Amino acid sequence: MKLLLVLLPLCLLQAEEGMWTFNNFPRDRVKAAYGFSPTKEWLDHVRLSSVRLAEGCSASLVSPNGLVLTNHHCASTCIQQNSTAEKNYSANGFRSKVEGEEVRCTGQEANILDSITDVTARVNQATNGLADRAANAARKVEFAKIEKECATSDELRCEVISLYGGGIYDLYKYRRYQDVRLVFAPEFTIAFFGGDPDNFMFPRYDLDMSILRIYDKGQPLKTEHYFPISKQGAKDGELTFVSGNPGSTQRLYTIAMLENQRDFALRHRLLYLSEYRGLLTMFQTRGAEEQRISQDELFFLENSIKAYKGQQESLIEPAFFEQKKREEADFQRKVQADPKLRAEYGKVWDTIAKTTRESRSRYLSFLYFEGRYGFRSDLYQLAKTLVRSEEEYGKPNEKRLPEYADARKPEIEQELSNTAPIYPELEIETLTFSLTKLREVFGMDDPRIRQIFGKKSPREIATEAVNGSKLADPAARKSVGASDSMIALARLVDPIARAARKEYEDDVEAPTKRGQEQLAKARFAAYGRSIYPDATFTLRLSYGSVKGWIENGKKVDPFTNFGGAYEHATGRDPYKLPDSWLNAKDKLDALTPFDFVTTNDIIGGNSGSPVINKDGQIVGLIFDGNIHSLGGNYGFDEVLNRAVAVHSRALLEALEKIYGAQRVLAEIKVQ
Amino acid sequence: MKLLLVLLPLCLLQAEEGMWTFNNFPRDRVKAAYGFSPTKEWLDHVRLSSVRLAEGCSASLVSPNGLVLTNHHCASTCIQQNSTAEKNYSANGFRSKVEGEEVRCTGQEANILDSITDVTARVNQATNGLADRAANAARKVEFAKIEKECATSDELRCEVISLYGGGIYDLYKYRRYQDVRLVFAPEFTIAFFGGDPDNFMFPRYDLDMSILRIYDKGQPLKTEHYFPISKQGAKDGELTFVSGNPGSTQRLYTIAMLENQRDFALRHRLLYLSEYRGLLTMFQTRGAEEQRISQDELFFLENSIKAYKGQQESLIEPAFFEQKKREEADFQRKVQADPKLRAEYGKVWDTIAKTTRESRSRYLSFLYFEGRYGFRSDLYQLAKTLVRSEEEYGKPNEKRLPEYADARKPEIEQELSNTAPIYPELEIETLTFSLTKLREVFGMDDPRIRQIFGKKSPREIATEAVNGSKLADPAARKSVGASDSMIALARLVDPIARAARKEYEDDVEAPTKRGQEQLAKARFAAYGRSIYPDATFTLRLSYGSVKGWIENGKKVDPFTNFGGAYEHATGRDPYKLPDSWLNAKDKLDALTPFDFVTTNDIIGGNSGSPVINKDGQIVGLIFDGNIHSLGGNYGFDEVLNRAVAVHSRALLEALEKIYGAQRVLAEIKVQ
Repeated sequence: MKLLLVLLPLCLLQAEEGMWTFNNFPRDRVKAAYGFSPTKEWLDHVRLSSVRLAEGCSASLVSPNGLVLTNHHCASTCIQQNSTAEKNYSANGFRSKVEGEEVRCTGQEANILDSITDVTARVNQATNGLADRAANAARKVEFAKIEKECATSDELRCEVISLYGGGIYDLYKYRRYQDVRLVFAPEFTIAFFGGDPDNFMFPRYDLDMSILRIYDKGQPLKTEHYFPISKQGAKDGELTFVSGNPGSTQRLYTIAMLENQRDFALRHRLLYLSEYRGLLTMFQTRGAEEQRISQDELFFLENSIKAYKGQQESLIEPAFFEQKKREEADFQRKVQADPKLRAEYGKVWDTIAKTTRESRSRYLSFLYFEGRYGFRSDLYQLAKTLVRSEEEYGKPNEKRLPEYADARKPEIEQELSNTAPIYPELEIETLTFSLTKLREVFGMDDPRIRQIFGKKSPREIATEAVNGSKLADPAARKSVGASDSMIALARLVDPIARAARKEYEDDVEAPTKRGQEQLAKARFAAYGRSIYPDATFTLRLSYGSVKGWIENGKKVDPFTNFGGAYEHATGRDPYKLPDSWLNAKDKLDALTPFDFVTTNDIIGGNSGSPVINKDGQIVGLIFDGNIHSLGGNYGFDEVLNRAVAVHSRALLEALEKIYGAQRVLAEIKVQ
Repeated sequence: MKLLLVLLPLCLLQAEEGMWTFNNFPRDRVKAAYGFSPTKEWLDHVRLSSVRLAEGCSASLVSPNGLVLTNHHCASTCIQQNSTAEKNYSANGFRSKVEGEEVRCTGQEANILDSITDVTARVNQATNGLADRAANAARKVEFAKIEKECATSDELRCEVISLYGGGIYDLYKYRRYQDVRLVFAPEFTIAFFGGDPDNFMFPRYDLDMSILRIYDKGQPLKTEHYFPISKQGAKDGELTFVSGNPGSTQRLYTIAMLENQRDFALRHRLLYLSEYRGLLTMFQTRGAEEQRISQDELFFLENSIKAYKGQQESLIEPAFFEQKKREEADFQRKVQADPKLRAEYGKVWDTIAKTTRESRSRYLSFLYFEGRYGFRSDLYQLAKTLVRSEEEYGKPNEKRLPEYADARKPEIEQELSNTAPIYPELEIETLTFSLTKLREVFGMDDPRIRQIFGKKSPREIATEAVNGSKLADPAARKSVGASDSMIALARLVDPIARAARKEYEDDVEAPTKRGQEQLAKARFAAYGRSIYPDATFTLRLSYGSVKGWIENGKKVDPFTNFGGAYEHATGRDPYKLPDSWLNAKDKLDALTPFDFVTTNDIIGGNSGSPVINKDGQIVGLIFDGNIHSLGGNYGFDEVLNRAVAVHSRALLEALEKIYGAQRVLAEIKVQ
């Protein structure tokens, strides 16, 4: 991977770079480049037509009755949950013929961003003069207060977002919809044609789409804000906007933090996940049913591995890293040159470097004991939530762990009432694996390990805990039964997990957050305010255009077409076209655009984002980035980094000619 | 891992550092440090009592009738080959009660180093004035000639060894024994007590021993050279020698080569192997028989992963890498300061760096198409050997691939006559996995991939090739049947594999070898001749002493004892003691030394090496290094790097009191 000439100092950012907040969108830059300046009304309409899917995706409203367009892989958990060995919607696709057939995506939640309010002054006041740990705690208390005041009903979701690493704190208020249903999905094989080998690649031939519907009080959501779909679709060179929720980037990380990512965090995660991948791959050979129940997990796992690998490769690339170093040096020079800035911020980099260097064992403890690395099991996570609910809800709101604050109760309730099936056979294997790694990482001599394992093997613990638990049944989650073996395991681990979390928060998070907050202020002082914050899984708008790139001296065309899919089909996974496509071949125009690329600056979390033109029409549906986009975590390279989308003509053609989805087509506005 | 203060420039090497050749042993240094100077007779006797096991281990003769002491894990392949579901020697151990019950280790070969001859002048003459590629080819031709002249019978094995990266070429002549039989082995659970979690760790409680016997023309080998075993065993602080065959080290690598290891080669291998580990782990859950047939593979896999991880960690450690950089800078300064050296060698580092930078795709092609990464299957390797034999043996000796030279025919014949069982179920899975990775790494658009796969999936190819092959039966290997499907696959791949190999040899190996040869000469000029070469899986002698170390401020005692094994037993893998040990508990003295550590400089390949005292008695049996020894690939740190061995008292006590191995005890000389 070549990532030269990336990442100029932020004051000199590349033309199309940036995941901009809706309250700081650089209209003048767009105007200068494309002669179009979005009005406030335009921005408001786009914001209110955009949807965040709380499980980790983006989406958009496409009808006045709450139809939502997103990716297949953003609905894949829902699709698998509603499938059985007999009716396999992943293999065969899903089509609801009447409204009543639309099936609930339990666990899914849709958010529409209602307003953004600056609460920086209030948060800063709460932490004013406090040392790092106390400030970190006080910040969380203040967040909980602000969110509780805002969330006056369960229909609102309120989150205080830390932007620029803490330079600005904004309150994001969403309308919350926990009743989301599946309306339409194509077959997995065409949604993910090319599979893992082609993931993050282009050219591509994927119909990575699905259609959901938001329900409000049991009825389809009525909305005046939604996007029409363009019959013409994206054209080469056309200005495109992407409105979505990029998950996280680390573009403002210091060199010490990036080195830690490169040499430690990514390395550790990749080895763990690669081993897990081998395990799941072999689990799939047990039979068709095992393949079905682990498909979703394997898909996301392989996606993570490829993303992490790309991130690590970008950090290993010397040209890229040297550029990051130059950028930091430039920033430091500016701070050191100003006596006031030097006095206030001159030592921040060293403090962060020291914290980072000393954080590794705490990071691992946090990752394994409190995170999912040591306990990869849905039943365990439910048990943990139950054990903690019991304890946390007995405390006043501000004293609780943040995820148990009053403003977040609906998420906890949704988790506990989730009727998605849980498969004991898979649970035993994933828990055995994660417990084995837990023991491997900390060793038998760690008292925490001795306490959890005693003389038992990982498989014994996992088998007993899964087989002795009734938590797969939502009704059994009402009371924290003392006899439930998974609850017993969660109870045993909980004090250890809490201690690991507290140590991490006090010794790593607190000084790092304080340091980042200071760097943000220094950055504003040195470079002004016309910069964008790192991604935070909140709504952002990026602009760019349809444009190919040059790969190893060869031009990559920005479009593929239907014909290419048939040419690449082998009849075998992952290059197998579904029967519906084979049957419809004669009805399709082979030259219909299928997928395409744009220069929009996106990242994981943007999946399902609409690509819209200046008239606010959907011209495409984001579902991936090219391989160069993986370095986008740390910097944007306009020369190579591309967003990958399904073309709107492909969406419309497939719905009409392959799937005969007249009910959906009748509802959406095609322009 | 802390690896500070490692790797002074070679002229200042640490006291105990060095894997010395027998013809350049630093007697004076040992004399100065310990007051003992090995005589020529002493060295000759040690050399002739030392054994190389061609599958990758070391060993030693311990009786006048050819008994050989080595590790359990050096015989584990033999143990598994001779086991079945009914008689599982891995689980239950192996004891031959009479000579006739000793079972053949087909595939194993024992070598005893008869002589070393300097052939540097002859090799240099052959390559004199030639450009890199031509020199590389001419060197191989000259090697084949020298080896053929030396190997006057199949009972001799002759290898030209490139020492110091090519500064010296020595001809190693061995007596070759292809009839090696298993005499005694304890249970796997005590040989590898603590399993992967405790591998490369200390304290340890492992009886990692086995006893083999060399047969010569069907009779036990008669020898006057063998080691007695010390009843007393190693004492704290005692001078110890280790005679064995360290496999490979990269201590003379340039910084560019080390960076390539750190950022590319090790990273790539580790992700591949980790995934494979998950796969095999899950394969084991298919049943007891699947567990048995994959145990050996999983053991060596986990061992490799841990070793590679440790190597990578040492290279990531900034203090370690900075020291390597200083070392190179010192060397470069010396070369630049001397006009003659500068003119001859001043540019070598840049040449190597450029080659290394450009080598990655060729390295991967070599690793996957020609190496085992793309074709992980014993049947495939047999088919490849058959296909190549047919072609290569039709050429004159010097034109062949080196492994098909006349001097190496016995190895090829042994491979083809190996009666070790091959398990189709496991073969299909490992070949499917490796083919999947092959396709993933090079992509469907690579013409080589298209040629191999067509429209087939990895599993289809693997299943057809394995199920349609008769090569598991040695008799079927006599003729290269056109109808054998594995032969067909090997034929299809062979031109691709040969091309990948040739490109690698021409574009990577040739310039790198030339560069290393030049660096070796420059090094002799700058630092003189009192240095040791990187390891080459040839016989070396290291000296050191029994000595604990300080870990995180705490002293680690150099000895463990039998009592510790019982204390650490949990009754579950990998901390399960076999019944024989549980039953013998009362007969044993808990204070008997079990395992211990020394400062001897060793590395992978030294497994099974005898630890001997100055009287030439065996006081221990090397089976591992501590975690710090993994950085030993790149440099030796006397403060932390330790060799781990079984104590000779533990060997004798276990044979007598636990296993009642009177026949063996009667034959060895206990002093």
